[in-house]
Amino acid sequence: MAACTLNFVLIASAFFSFTGAIIPYKTAYFEQNLDHFNFVQVETFKQRYIYTDQYWNGNGPIFFYTGNEGPIPGFWDNSGFVFEAAEKFNALVIFGEHRYYGESMPFGSSSFDHDKVGYLTVEQALADFAVLVTGLKIQFKATQSKVVAFGGSYGGMLSAYMRFKYPNVIDVALAASAPIYMVTFKGIEREFFFSAVTEIPHLLGWIRNSFTSLAMGDYPYPTTFLAPLPGYPVNVACKMMATASSKLQGLADVTAMVYNGTNGTLTCLDPDTEYIECADPTGCGLGPDSRAWDYQACTEVALPAGSNNKTDMFPVLPWTLDMITKYCQEKWGVAQRPGWAATQLWGKDIASASNIIFSNGDLDPWRPGGVLEDVSPTLVTVLVKGGAHHLDLRASNPLDPATVTQARKQELELIQKFIQ
Amino acid sequence: MAACTLNFVLIASAFFSFTGAIIPYKTAYFEQNLDHFNFVQVETFKQRYIYTDQYWNGNGPIFFYTGNEGPIPGFWDNSGFVFEAAEKFNALVIFGEHRYYGESMPFGSSSFDHDKVGYLTVEQALADFAVLVTGLKIQFKATQSKVVAFGGSYGGMLSAYMRFKYPNVIDVALAASAPIYMVTFKGIEREFFFSAVTEIPHLLGWIRNSFTSLAMGDYPYPTTFLAPLPGYPVNVACKMMATASSKLQGLADVTAMVYNGTNGTLTCLDPDTEYIECADPTGCGLGPDSRAWDYQACTEVALPAGSNNKTDMFPVLPWTLDMITKYCQEKWGVAQRPGWAATQLWGKDIASASNIIFSNGDLDPWRPGGVLEDVSPTLVTVLVKGGAHHLDLRASNPLDPATVTQARKQELELIQKFIQ
Repeated sequence: MAACTLNFVLIASAFFSFTGAIIPYKTAYFEQNLDHFNFVQVETFKQRYIYTDQYWNGNGPIFFYTGNEGPIPGFWDNSGFVFEAAEKFNALVIFGEHRYYGESMPFGSSSFDHDKVGYLTVEQALADFAVLVTGLKIQFKATQSKVVAFGGSYGGMLSAYMRFKYPNVIDVALAASAPIYMVTFKGIEREFFFSAVTEIPHLLGWIRNSFTSLAMGDYPYPTTFLAPLPGYPVNVACKMMATASSKLQGLADVTAMVYNGTNGTLTCLDPDTEYIECADPTGCGLGPDSRAWDYQACTEVALPAGSNNKTDMFPVLPWTLDMITKYCQEKWGVAQRPGWAATQLWGKDIASASNIIFSNGDLDPWRPGGVLEDVSPTLVTVLVKGGAHHLDLRASNPLDPATVTQARKQELELIQKFIQ
Repeated sequence: MAACTLNFVLIASAFFSFTGAIIPYKTAYFEQNLDHFNFVQVETFKQRYIYTDQYWNGNGPIFFYTGNEGPIPGFWDNSGFVFEAAEKFNALVIFGEHRYYGESMPFGSSSFDHDKVGYLTVEQALADFAVLVTGLKIQFKATQSKVVAFGGSYGGMLSAYMRFKYPNVIDVALAASAPIYMVTFKGIEREFFFSAVTEIPHLLGWIRNSFTSLAMGDYPYPTTFLAPLPGYPVNVACKMMATASSKLQGLADVTAMVYNGTNGTLTCLDPDTEYIECADPTGCGLGPDSRAWDYQACTEVALPAGSNNKTDMFPVLPWTLDMITKYCQEKWGVAQRPGWAATQLWGKDIASASNIIFSNGDLDPWRPGGVLEDVSPTLVTVLVKGGAHHLDLRASNPLDPATVTQARKQELELIQKFIQ
């Protein structure tokens, strides 16, 4: 889900660009147990959360964003729908940062040392959120308030998982573009995966990744969420290919658009820094957030296989289970545990959960891993025709297609219904 | 829940006595990850499980007992109802041993060292069971089989928790005499707790504990589950008190009945070895299982306050939160985490769970902490009038009151209904 420079650009997006009004936030820190599942381990760390009470009437619900793989302000700035909804519900809005991302580093710059990185798991992150919300309900004198979790992509998975594991804490979840089946499905195909072996696959991965970012970020207006892109960048890319002097030049133009961006100032591109290979086939960036994501992809967040040129348009980039095992062992000294994620996070057996809205856009490459059909009257889906990666979570925009406006309306109605 | 010599006697019961037919079992071991929530920790240990396929037709359900605080054969020998049900359902019966009990010691005799005991938590135990069941379903070629969890007392809590946390693995749970509200309720009263400070409170605790065992083990026929006791031992105790030469002699006779047992050979009683104080106000025995239970009572399994001579007939034995904190810090170097168990294990907010049968006997002192009223059509209660501590889990007996026979019938019907 990293799609190359996600974390990088998230940081940038907080400063440079934003669609919709900028919502000011307050920053605070919550003392968390480093290991929720081991009482001998008594160390703690400070988890960042950001919030606003500008919509809150003291009795309304709490809207809690389950932070994902990046500094939390980036998600704040790209999830304007949460604030529009908060205004309607008079809600207190809190965004919790995921441990090992942003400022929530348990051991500062040494957080990724071998003896320290092991506290980065989905379970610890979910427990953080459960303890944080429980604590903040007391702090904000809101113990009677219902709590709605919001999240997009991996954050959407976490929102759904909160309803799975902590329905006593979270009453309703909007899981936007959350490919829970792809990540935890027992039968996941892992035959093909990108290669970190030779230079030519790296170059191909670098190009392939630009298309991934284009598809995920195919929003109707300019954004900087995944990369600084124009509105409907896939259309722009198609035009570039059609009008280029050669197919190779067209490919170069499109790739450059992603890596150089609409505000690009680079005089040349550098695949070695712009596409950092890792256990996520869509690549990782640089910096601590990317390292955290790489570790998660090496442990519980099993990502889809690479391209095979049969079911996709990309060159064959094999990344076998043996290869990823070797990579993760050498890089982190860890191995995935076959079947664990499916057992712990329910795989496809999610029918006993309730009050979750799964939304997916049909332009989103992650969609096939999502929940696309209603499972029960309280486990429902919202399909956003013409929508890219969790477009519905973004602020309303004059350029929005009617489908996403309708989807948001439907989501508000479902939240209203489930909250009662 | 230990009620003094529970673990001790569980071991004994496997050898000495049994109500109902003795069911032979096979023993096997499953390789478990020591820390399910930390991928850097690569150590494993062998978890014991015992099973029988004598009722199984290859297509029936799996009946899985979620082992509690003692060696697993003790629960096998005292849960005859599981086999009677297995015969009706053509079920495969598996009893999983709880980590740090019986033979499932991750580090052998050093398992309780400070740096090793931290892997003993409810969450790790639940994950063990989830991974074990998932693995055994493959091993027994039963991936399509439904799984019914059975458990009594703390084991019943674990059965319910499996439905809370792993409904993808466990389809139905029978949680017998499971005081989940007492252990995880946020508002738990901790003002009174037994005292380990002076000798006189120890003597009183020793006597008080004999009454606890009498009440928990007030079965209609002789058993050795909690202690070697006659049928309806509370009635026997009352007669002893009424016919004794003095009240003190009567008290001594009753206490001796529990500690010396119906097969007693002791020439004198010794409160110092027969009642071992620990973080559980009903006391702990000796040996590794009692140490494990003491550690659990110091961490997640918060047990009720001691006696206060106002709401009970026992002497005042104060055990304040300060005292238990001091005890647990000195003994184990750990502290309870306020609110954690209620957050992690849902406190009283259990309505989103399903397919759980909570049974309680009205003679059982743990009953007030149990789920006593139906929460939903799939979260139902069975009350056993005249029943002691999970009497319904025991094998049918000619001396059974009609109420428990009726309760078991009701449980079978509910299992049948929920399994579909």
